[in-house]
Amino acid sequence: MEYKVIAFDVMGSDNGLIPAVDAAIKLLGEQKDLKIIFVGNEEALKKELSSRKHNPDQVEIKNATEVIEMTDGIMDIRRKKDSSMVRALELVRDGKAHGITTGGATAPFIAGCHFIIKKMDGIERPGFMPVIPTNVKDKTTLLLDVGANLECDPEDLVNFAIMATAYSKAVKGIKNPTVALLNIGEEKSKGLELHKEAYKLLEANKEINFVGNLESRYLVNGQVDIIVTDGYSGNIALKALEGMGKTLLNEIKSAITKTLFRKLAALRLKKAFKEVAAKFDYKNHAGAILLGANSIAFKSHGSSDKTAFYATLKMTYNAIKNDVVNKVKKALVE
Amino acid sequence: MEYKVIAFDVMGSDNGLIPAVDAAIKLLGEQKDLKIIFVGNEEALKKELSSRKHNPDQVEIKNATEVIEMTDGIMDIRRKKDSSMVRALELVRDGKAHGITTGGATAPFIAGCHFIIKKMDGIERPGFMPVIPTNVKDKTTLLLDVGANLECDPEDLVNFAIMATAYSKAVKGIKNPTVALLNIGEEKSKGLELHKEAYKLLEANKEINFVGNLESRYLVNGQVDIIVTDGYSGNIALKALEGMGKTLLNEIKSAITKTLFRKLAALRLKKAFKEVAAKFDYKNHAGAILLGANSIAFKSHGSSDKTAFYATLKMTYNAIKNDVVNKVKKALVE
Repeated sequence: MEYKVIAFDVMGSDNGLIPAVDAAIKLLGEQKDLKIIFVGNEEALKKELSSRKHNPDQVEIKNATEVIEMTDGIMDIRRKKDSSMVRALELVRDGKAHGITTGGATAPFIAGCHFIIKKMDGIERPGFMPVIPTNVKDKTTLLLDVGANLECDPEDLVNFAIMATAYSKAVKGIKNPTVALLNIGEEKSKGLELHKEAYKLLEANKEINFVGNLESRYLVNGQVDIIVTDGYSGNIALKALEGMGKTLLNEIKSAITKTLFRKLAALRLKKAFKEVAAKFDYKNHAGAILLGANSIAFKSHGSSDKTAFYATLKMTYNAIKNDVVNKVKKALVE
Repeated sequence: MEYKVIAFDVMGSDNGLIPAVDAAIKLLGEQKDLKIIFVGNEEALKKELSSRKHNPDQVEIKNATEVIEMTDGIMDIRRKKDSSMVRALELVRDGKAHGITTGGATAPFIAGCHFIIKKMDGIERPGFMPVIPTNVKDKTTLLLDVGANLECDPEDLVNFAIMATAYSKAVKGIKNPTVALLNIGEEKSKGLELHKEAYKLLEANKEINFVGNLESRYLVNGQVDIIVTDGYSGNIALKALEGMGKTLLNEIKSAITKTLFRKLAALRLKKAFKEVAAKFDYKNHAGAILLGANSIAFKSHGSSDKTAFYATLKMTYNAIKNDVVNKVKKALVE
């Protein structure tokens, strides 16, 4: 069988390799054409894998003696040559895997992608693209860049739009994905020079279904398929959403369990709360692709648990299966 | 009696003058040393006021024949000389009122403040400062700038910190308010040049109780009293919070009322939901002061209802009562 192969860096995330292995075993059971190369401490991996039922043909282990820690910087990618992150990236570079998933540190990972798997032709700045949950049933929105780059020029934003459009078509099956520009107002004249110039370029580009500016208050309203922005603003917006969502859900939880009377009523609403939490839980949307890297490169939240790793591995699998890299490359030269 | 006088521009907001008048009458009943000069259509105002119980000594009407509309731009402040916004600003400029409250369009209001009531000495860019609700009981955080300026330099951010510190002491009675810099990470080296430079200046300034960078995911966690940022990022962050809060509360509302069974359980939790909603409802925090303007200038949400106008008028009253302008000016020269 021709496997879709993921190099899975299981080290360096906050919760250790057990949730990573659990998530991988789950997905391997579901996708028979998936192979995962677990990259990390061989001994620990052997122990964890031997205690979990799986098809051995779908599993490989690649030993790595070092770990990129959360506090490590960009240069540690050069220094820690036998780290699991570097080894996993090399598997992708050498064609032994079709994509990488990691829960490790963000900055070294982006640097590692640049150094080891390189960028696509014509792309100066790849963009980090998470999936934003929305209040529209079964609809999510792609937001990029959220911090791979702090400063972007208008051409970067146009490339983000082209790449995300190709991704949406390939992975999400959306025929003509709508693209908005994150801005502080709807009018064409709003924002910094970056946004005014990007607006003009996006509007003029026939490959992009540009629908105008979008304010951050509508980020989770499912109005568009793709939102492009510079990495600094995208990071601020994404974390504000996450923080508010988490805080509000916690506040509600504590308010409805404050008294026994409330607790009893809340029990009857358990399913209702679960529905809302599932929709807006960032664990279900923990993965972000580095779009513009010359292969499929997914980063999962540093604090990923089994649910989060599973979601990100599945995104990686889907991106491989739908040949995202070649489709994005093709869109860039059109 | 020596009145604290607010010039209240009642025209130009989305909901007309009735909620504005209702809010004013409520506050006038509570604060016997408050006088409100209602600025707008005299005939309509006379009609509304005559049907509401109030002390006539606390009320004046200033007729204005024009209205700054929501779609109006900066230059309409120059063009519409007899608009309620311009007339209200002139009352402040001429010393007939101690502060202004408006629910009118933001950009013309900021321009009007610049042209008519001017800026404080030493302030190049006044900052819009709303109050952010937090999950800590009775604690709110001040965030500025949220869009009075799109681009700021490091010195502006230091001035924001100094002014907001003086405001917090005067109005909120906080002895040594903590100040954070909004950024994409906690480390000193994070962010654009603006942030790195601002970090150094804030750290070196002995008048500011600077505690470092703060990520937007912690905006509503009540960790600090004041958060400074450039107007573009502040606007993106604030609207992301508002949008996520509103969307999530709506989602919960619809989930818990989907079936009769759920509705009945939800009735028993009505108070719990109200507690959370009241904390995070932006209506209760609808007002933002333009800090650095040479008088007290408050903008209420364009879609303000009675609750929102009441909250903003009360903030205006408190700022006047606590002599905010002089205290901020004093802090700036220290």
